[in-house]
Amino acid sequence: VYCYEREVHVYETDLMGIVHHSNYLRFCEEARVDWCKRKGFLLNKKDESSDSAVYGLTVYETRVRHVAPIRYSDRIVINMQTRAEGIRIIFQYKIFVDKNLKSIVETVHCNLDLNFKVKRLSPELIKLVEKEIWTETWL
Amino acid sequence: VYCYEREVHVYETDLMGIVHHSNYLRFCEEARVDWCKRKGFLLNKKDESSDSAVYGLTVYETRVRHVAPIRYSDRIVINMQTRAEGIRIIFQYKIFVDKNLKSIVETVHCNLDLNFKVKRLSPELIKLVEKEIWTETWL
Amino acid sequence: VYCYEREVHVYETDLMGIVHHSNYLRFCEEARVDWCKRKGFLLNKKDESSDSAVYGLTVYETRVRHVAPIRYSDRIVINMQTRAEGIRIIFQYKIFVDKNLKSIVETVHCNLDLNFKVKRLSPELIKLVEKEIWTETWL
Amino acid sequence: VYCYEREVHVYETDLMGIVHHSNYLRFCEEARVDWCKRKGFLLNKKDESSDSAVYGLTVYETRVRHVAPIRYSDRIVINMQTRAEGIRIIFQYKIFVDKNLKSIVETVHCNLDLNFKVKRLSPELIKLVEKEIWTETWL
Repeated sequence: VYCYEREVHVYETDLMGIVHHSNYLRFCEEARVDWCKRKGFLLNKKDESSDSAVYGLTVYETRVRHVAPIRYSDRIVINMQTRAEGIRIIFQYKIFVDKNLKSIVETVHCNLDLNFKVKRLSPELIKLVEKEIWTETWL
Repeated sequence: VYCYEREVHVYETDLMGIVHHSNYLRFCEEARVDWCKRKGFLLNKKDESSDSAVYGLTVYETRVRHVAPIRYSDRIVINMQTRAEGIRIIFQYKIFVDKNLKSIVETVHCNLDLNFKVKRLSPELIKLVEKEIWTETWL
Repeated sequence: VYCYEREVHVYETDLMGIVHHSNYLRFCEEARVDWCKRKGFLLNKKDESSDSAVYGLTVYETRVRHVAPIRYSDRIVINMQTRAEGIRIIFQYKIFVDKNLKSIVETVHCNLDLNFKVKRLSPELIKLVEKEIWTETWL
Repeated sequence: VYCYEREVHVYETDLMGIVHHSNYLRFCEEARVDWCKRKGFLLNKKDESSDSAVYGLTVYETRVRHVAPIRYSDRIVINMQTRAEGIRIIFQYKIFVDKNLKSIVETVHCNLDLNFKVKRLSPELIKLVEKEIWTETWL
């Protein structure tokens, strides 16, 4: 299972002293983009000659379930799994701190062109996704 | 149906020229908090003598479905409905720009004390919620 | 003097229970953009045929002095003044809550084309700026 | 000279395709906090028994000069220097991408107690700062 980690910053907390719930989607985007980069698939890089790369993983749907709060200075570890389903690609994430599960997230993506019309998924991306192992469904 | 509106800011967009998907949860939080204020229910206001108000609507789960992109300078209009269900309160939101549906969101909340133990919902809050009309389920 | 106001949101605070210092620049951007709109000068609106509007007020330099903290739910009131100086436009802001000064900000802007080369300021924008009153220097 | 680095994320850009100017202050906070941690000085960690640590480096003033834009996926490298001056601590930062200077930042801090009254700087922190080398003034 692919794994991404980093520490939580002061500006990601709110007055409750914990990470604001909107930032979980940012953490997962970081993990997803990092996975794409490591696999050699360029994401969201604005390239006039190749719009297919630009909108290749537009966010269609997101779900976040909070299990326990995450605090400033915690080191989050994100496990990620992915699979293709028709014209969509699904990512699921488990966010841990010190091996304690803090949150489960799902993001569903499709491929849009510059006019936001849905296109087929990039075959290059599908190949990458098919090599991944989808264990059980987490959320 | 309760309604909240405001314009989209430059810093809420990303390099794709549209609102970053994490910001939809911030828009909905604004709407939810504004609703609480108008109803006289103080939310997340750190008050030493009354911790019940502090964590009264902790976010347990969120879902966002994106229908069409929102752009800088668009004026978003959010319709919101809410209902109680056991120890949870559920909010659903439809986000419009110029009467076109852009996104549907659901957030599920519970009441936590300062140690993040689940408590009963505030009776004051339940009364407010029960006065609201839940039309059909949007998401 | 031009005036912009709005309430502070939960997600703009951090674990200290006050507005995170980076968000002051976002408040001032909102005020600046709102001023441009009210004056009929379109800012940062990506328009292929008219790149002059796109990068018309690129941020060159910012300064923020914090006088007192701003908290969630505070209603900020921003006074703003502006003047042109050679190829630059300068904005200064005073941020108040309940008529108490909380912060003084300055942002300095220039006009960039799509390759980030400095260009002359838009004559349209200079005209708008010259109509404004610059009282004393605030910062 | 202390050095901090990391990649730029999608959500830190705006519709101009470059990093939003408010995020430079967040990058510098990350560098500053990381420096404190590596030196064993706990920052902004809410600890009931020791409020001195909580507000030890409250932001008093910030200045950012932009030299060239930073883009998504760039790897920023921040050089940082610090010195004490009376009741203030000053940090300066140079932000590079591929050894090209992109921005120069200064942040000025003081020590506040929980009521936001100015206190003396922590002697522990002053010792750390005095061990640092302040080369020339960058901004």
